[in-house]
Amino acid sequence: MSETISRDDFLAGVAFNADGLVAAVAQDHKTGELLMFAWMNAESLRLTLETGDITYWSRSRGELWRKGATSGHTQKLVEAYIDCDGDALLFKVEQTGAACHTGNRSCFYRKLG
Amino acid sequence: MSETISRDDFLAGVAFNADGLVAAVAQDHKTGELLMFAWMNAESLRLTLETGDITYWSRSRGELWRKGATSGHTQKLVEAYIDCDGDALLFKVEQTGAACHTGNRSCFYRKLG
Repeated sequence: MSETISRDDFLAGVAFNADGLVAAVAQDHKTGELLMFAWMNAESLRLTLETGDITYWSRSRGELWRKGATSGHTQKLVEAYIDCDGDALLFKVEQTGAACHTGNRSCFYRKLG
Repeated sequence: MSETISRDDFLAGVAFNADGLVAAVAQDHKTGELLMFAWMNAESLRLTLETGDITYWSRSRGELWRKGATSGHTQKLVEAYIDCDGDALLFKVEQTGAACHTGNRSCFYRKLG
């Protein structure tokens, strides 16, 4: 159901918002569990694709945020997808430990009862 | 791994951005496939929870967007999750037909080769 595109087409398709950011979601590549939602700028996206280490842009700290750099809870890139209008990216990842700073594996650990 | 919270706590936990919006991702509740990424405002979230019909806020049209209202490709709410900092919601849904306006089941149909 998916089509494969080149890195050039992938990068050209990204529609960064007015702040220069694109939404990024990380999903466990084996279980399909949605792990977290964050943002990337052009530099963090470039680093992610070049190094295979998922790297976000921290809006609160205003700096590049290589996931797991301090916690060790890295996310390794397995597959990358871009959505139809380019304003969201999906990364299927190999997650080490907990994706969430709370210690939960996923940031989406609170469920409506 | 997840904790169940009340509707009041769920709604109180949402951190709407400066535009009054919160990020929303829809995931197939059976297959785990990530279907789409869009936005909700308070009214669309309220409608989603009350009716069970996933309803977004269309930023391009500036109006409520009940998914499938014209296409018939509805999304029925199965489970709702909120992330650790409240700026993203995850909806596990029963998707009828294609989630994407391109006819693809998922908006994330372009994969980096």
